[in-house]
Amino acid sequence: VAALPFGHALWAATEASAQGAAGAAGPTTLPSGLIVRESNPVNLEFPFSRLEGFITPTSQFYVRSHFATPKLDRAAWRLRVEGAVERPLELSYEELLRMQSETRPVTLECAGNGRSFLNPPVRGVQWAEGAVSNAEWTGVPLAAVLRRAKVKRGAVEVVLEGADTTELKSVPRPAGPIHFARSLPLAKALDPSVLLAHQMNGAELPVDHGFPVRGVVPGWYGVSSIKWLTRIVVTEQPFNGHFQTVDYAYYERRNGLPSRVPLTTMQVKSEIARPAAGESVPAGAPYRVFGAAWTGDDADIRKVEVSTDGGRSWSEGKLLGKSARGAWRLWEYDWRTPSAGKQTLLARATDSRGRTQPMERDPDRDNYMITHVLPVQVTVR
Amino acid sequence: VAALPFGHALWAATEASAQGAAGAAGPTTLPSGLIVRESNPVNLEFPFSRLEGFITPTSQFYVRSHFATPKLDRAAWRLRVEGAVERPLELSYEELLRMQSETRPVTLECAGNGRSFLNPPVRGVQWAEGAVSNAEWTGVPLAAVLRRAKVKRGAVEVVLEGADTTELKSVPRPAGPIHFARSLPLAKALDPSVLLAHQMNGAELPVDHGFPVRGVVPGWYGVSSIKWLTRIVVTEQPFNGHFQTVDYAYYERRNGLPSRVPLTTMQVKSEIARPAAGESVPAGAPYRVFGAAWTGDDADIRKVEVSTDGGRSWSEGKLLGKSARGAWRLWEYDWRTPSAGKQTLLARATDSRGRTQPMERDPDRDNYMITHVLPVQVTVR
Repeated sequence: VAALPFGHALWAATEASAQGAAGAAGPTTLPSGLIVRESNPVNLEFPFSRLEGFITPTSQFYVRSHFATPKLDRAAWRLRVEGAVERPLELSYEELLRMQSETRPVTLECAGNGRSFLNPPVRGVQWAEGAVSNAEWTGVPLAAVLRRAKVKRGAVEVVLEGADTTELKSVPRPAGPIHFARSLPLAKALDPSVLLAHQMNGAELPVDHGFPVRGVVPGWYGVSSIKWLTRIVVTEQPFNGHFQTVDYAYYERRNGLPSRVPLTTMQVKSEIARPAAGESVPAGAPYRVFGAAWTGDDADIRKVEVSTDGGRSWSEGKLLGKSARGAWRLWEYDWRTPSAGKQTLLARATDSRGRTQPMERDPDRDNYMITHVLPVQVTVR
Repeated sequence: VAALPFGHALWAATEASAQGAAGAAGPTTLPSGLIVRESNPVNLEFPFSRLEGFITPTSQFYVRSHFATPKLDRAAWRLRVEGAVERPLELSYEELLRMQSETRPVTLECAGNGRSFLNPPVRGVQWAEGAVSNAEWTGVPLAAVLRRAKVKRGAVEVVLEGADTTELKSVPRPAGPIHFARSLPLAKALDPSVLLAHQMNGAELPVDHGFPVRGVVPGWYGVSSIKWLTRIVVTEQPFNGHFQTVDYAYYERRNGLPSRVPLTTMQVKSEIARPAAGESVPAGAPYRVFGAAWTGDDADIRKVEVSTDGGRSWSEGKLLGKSARGAWRLWEYDWRTPSAGKQTLLARATDSRGRTQPMERDPDRDNYMITHVLPVQVTVR
């Protein structure tokens, strides 16, 4: 494949990652298939080449933890709602569950998903393509809780804070231990799709996924879907928390000046589940290329295209099922494999706002938002 | 001295810093008395114990540089004014000098001034108490240039950008080389006191102080007074430049949540120039304690108090000269020295907004805004 764009030089790494689970020096896998990227804190990757249905089984849903996993007691758990509200609240688990719940499929993707494919390497958990999963979440709309607390006029943001806490070691950092926390603009917090989820795929939240309650923010990178939620703070000033300024942010150029902005909405992206990188496929035969595609809020996936000639020409694949905003869309492409040799597949998605995955990596994104088209190399034999 | 507050444990360091210039292992000094903290980039400290008059001689004015010093050619220099303006400008040095200039005394303090006294040590240039100086600056009000360019409705900030440039090594960082730059809210940029200075103490700007033109922002930490100014960008969104988000920022607690905010206005502060730390003074005699005090914009120094008993009691000193907003105020205190022994002097300033220097260090300020009361220990003999 000639002239693959910036960020593609680590093809060898792609292959190594995909095969790592089997190799002697590769990462270990759990019986469920989850790939252990880090065990302390717990960071587990969905084996994306095993993608089957629209819903990721809970046992295979990727796990992203920043600090030690808090083990919260259901009876003692309280959700405090405070700050710029007329009626500060403290809700027990039972009180929350007595409120009206909704169920919706939501895809969460870690903002660092695909990081291991970058060249030069970047800091952070070295995810391959499986720091993304899709589950059915059941929870109380955040908007309903905010209505109960009566948000004051002049409020601008809503901070979700988890029980997970640590003293950071990197610099700059706040003094002393802090909790993981992130804010949403008030309008997003009031969007009826944002849930305080207490169930995942029809069962109680597992501890690794935020038991007893996790914020679930459709269309935004997973970092905003705060696990082990214990506090909601409505603010009258923008919240510049550590995890949206120093970390989980990137530089955007405006007037030629790099300006640091928080990571928020997921960017349009597709991934190929099968063939997996390094797979052998039969020559001169039909092969069903299969994957998923997703995008940010207020948009749907409109098209996924596949290229087998390094991006010179593209053929449209077929979108499967129906569009559910905030959830990924599965897709397939019927490939007639050529004669024996190395082949490289590319996939790119386009959404309802006309945004298409870029071919080149924007280096100002540093170690986040890896959405440029990545090659999957296979052997036809 | 019993129970000196947080940040005071490094008293030994205070003494070492003050005496360093003379000691074998201490920093070198230039013939002017400037203390060399770093030579590449050039970071030179005013020998604060040699404070004499209201105006710091240019040869003794502290120098803070982040990257290599740009040597700009007067004839080739241009100041571009662009972004959200009706009439983008490109001014030559002669064109700028043909505009009406004003002269005003302005004190600049590095946000890291006093850093070497912190315990535990923090990163950054290890300034003692002399990263502060006061000069008469002559320049064209920034507001006049902005009027010529006609700021568009909807503009919110004004970015000043220097010619100094480098590729950062710390993380996170933007990709590729960037220029040193910082923004002012539009209201501050339109304040008539903000100058595009082309003279310092009645002569052309020396290269280390930003030749040919430096922004001078009274009442704000020196970091905003951009040297080697070549571009002004008016923005319609807040500018989150590297040097006001990742660097030159600190954490402020709101609702118990640390929120990162840029360093802007100088905090109320006094420093003792004489006696110097470690100095010997005669017992049972009158001694003129002498120093300077300053504060942020829209405020004046109202009072400087001195304590010789570790902060249990305070006596008011005398403010010298007249108040000039944006410039420091010299002060003195007639001390009747006691009998022989170690003595510790403390000074604290209060400004017209009723703000007094704190006795304790706020650790969320990390390596910046060192304004808590620092002890000066002397030997009475």
